[in-house]
Amino acid sequence: MRAAIFQGPGNVRVEQVPDAALELDTDALVRVTAASIGGSDLWAYRGYGQRQPGARIGHEFVGLVEDVGAEVRTVRRGDLVLAPFSWSCGVCEFCLRGLTSSCVDGGFFSEPGHDGGQGEAVRVPHADGTLVVVPRSLRGAETRVLPLCDILSTGHHAAVSAQVNYRSTVAVVGDGAVGLCAVLAARRLGARRILVVGHHADRLALAQEFGATDIVEGRGQDAVEDVMARTGGVDAVLECVGAQGAWDTTIAIAKDGATIGYVGVPHLVEGVDVSLLFGRNLAIRGGMCPARAYIPGLLADVLDGTLDASPIFDLTVSLDELTDGYAMMDDRLALKAYVAI
Amino acid sequence: MRAAIFQGPGNVRVEQVPDAALELDTDALVRVTAASIGGSDLWAYRGYGQRQPGARIGHEFVGLVEDVGAEVRTVRRGDLVLAPFSWSCGVCEFCLRGLTSSCVDGGFFSEPGHDGGQGEAVRVPHADGTLVVVPRSLRGAETRVLPLCDILSTGHHAAVSAQVNYRSTVAVVGDGAVGLCAVLAARRLGARRILVVGHHADRLALAQEFGATDIVEGRGQDAVEDVMARTGGVDAVLECVGAQGAWDTTIAIAKDGATIGYVGVPHLVEGVDVSLLFGRNLAIRGGMCPARAYIPGLLADVLDGTLDASPIFDLTVSLDELTDGYAMMDDRLALKAYVAI
Repeated sequence: MRAAIFQGPGNVRVEQVPDAALELDTDALVRVTAASIGGSDLWAYRGYGQRQPGARIGHEFVGLVEDVGAEVRTVRRGDLVLAPFSWSCGVCEFCLRGLTSSCVDGGFFSEPGHDGGQGEAVRVPHADGTLVVVPRSLRGAETRVLPLCDILSTGHHAAVSAQVNYRSTVAVVGDGAVGLCAVLAARRLGARRILVVGHHADRLALAQEFGATDIVEGRGQDAVEDVMARTGGVDAVLECVGAQGAWDTTIAIAKDGATIGYVGVPHLVEGVDVSLLFGRNLAIRGGMCPARAYIPGLLADVLDGTLDASPIFDLTVSLDELTDGYAMMDDRLALKAYVAI
Repeated sequence: MRAAIFQGPGNVRVEQVPDAALELDTDALVRVTAASIGGSDLWAYRGYGQRQPGARIGHEFVGLVEDVGAEVRTVRRGDLVLAPFSWSCGVCEFCLRGLTSSCVDGGFFSEPGHDGGQGEAVRVPHADGTLVVVPRSLRGAETRVLPLCDILSTGHHAAVSAQVNYRSTVAVVGDGAVGLCAVLAARRLGARRILVVGHHADRLALAQEFGATDIVEGRGQDAVEDVMARTGGVDAVLECVGAQGAWDTTIAIAKDGATIGYVGVPHLVEGVDVSLLFGRNLAIRGGMCPARAYIPGLLADVLDGTLDASPIFDLTVSLDELTDGYAMMDDRLALKAYVAI
């Protein structure tokens, strides 16, 4: 089969690889119909992180079940399924508590020894714990559910972690795909006011369509002053970047007693100075999104049409054109690439 | 009147100072009957922090109301009252939300221009928002309520911040007065298991009396291994020290998804590495205790006898002997000094 291979910074190519195949009785084999390029793929493409040349890449995909192992009960051949970016057993202490990202037998698609989402097929470990069946009628409209694999669940994790509710004035730091999904999530949870801090006019315009009430275009001290002038500090900050500058902004715009919901994968972060939090009772919650636990609840709203992150996809590529997708996202000519497979 | 003056590191002396007196219509004048020496007093004594030579000191006191300003409604002359370590107006946004430590017109006893708790009398700003009336029958038994001023409320803040409940396995990091109160607080909230990490045998014995189920005597990697061997990681960590080593231990013993309730005033803390929190979804909540908001609820349990932190006082000194109290606490010959005035 064909699958994307990370060749090194700035270089992702589609190559022939061994066919994905069942290995364990709890596996499913999924024929990918739609995938996408995510933020952490892009970090790898830019040369950050642990990914070694020759590794698979991609962790967001939807597809048709082609085969299942003998012990798989909840999905069957022909189902259209969605996978979160990590697999999880569904029955360990952490999975039962909803912290599927800490599953004792979990892992990440495209990690060494495992198929990535950007390819023709994927062996899915722990199919029962991992896959979510979606209506077959979504075949051809996968952009509606594909955001659940990562970005929409992650934006939701930021909002839930920050305890966003109807009383909240929320600031979303970051106008990438996750930040935009965090706007959707904050609106869904009833936030009375949603500011978004970013520096891409087109993305900020989309944030406004998604429910942001205040657009703060800028960064650093300028952005802080703008947010403070508008609000005097916010109840919840959704940190959706993972870089030191974003953390500095996040802490500066939080009102005393605020909760920071952080989901930006930490890159180039020096650390959080506890003395900046202490006197103000700022809380920090979040981390790696337990997407599998959130997907059913979010899927309900996706299916009834009240939650739609699909406008984030502003580029469609085929597997053959995948390299172009990376390049355009790297150059910020595209926000997020949909990969039709 | 006589009051304690910080002369510089290692030197606190009682001197004649101007009599405390009402200044604003919202003030009360409180004749102190009992005070105590707190952890942050000791940090100052040891030369850490911003306190300048010549400054007042002390922030834990109980006393009799001697006079009140014209606008004071809820306390009157002759009342036995308790003050939290900071005053608060009671009517601002933060006070109404229970975050009295962030009161827009708040402040700390013994800060420049204000009386400290270790003296004969205190002008209490915002008497209505700050003071809590306790039964006159506690005159002579102030050790029961004095812990509410700071340590017991602060231990409770750690436990509440860490969302301790009947399902929790809790580790308290630190066996100082606040750590011991955190044990009481965790027990009160129904924690199923309470480990305490410290390195003073006598304090750990008291922790056991207070309800700790597991004593971990040691620090650093040894303590981490001991906690992990006993529990595999805990659901809630109550950080009651505020030094880097305690934070390192705290993060190492937290189970994925755990909440860290931190109340140790940050001293010598380099910072928290977000990348250590991210993958494990560790949350950090807490900070400066909004003691005034907690005192009524805790007082109910103190009065019915179910909550008693008074055994923490293992030394009684008079105001004349205050210097000895500091020296003995500094030498760890006393855990906490009660100052009978």
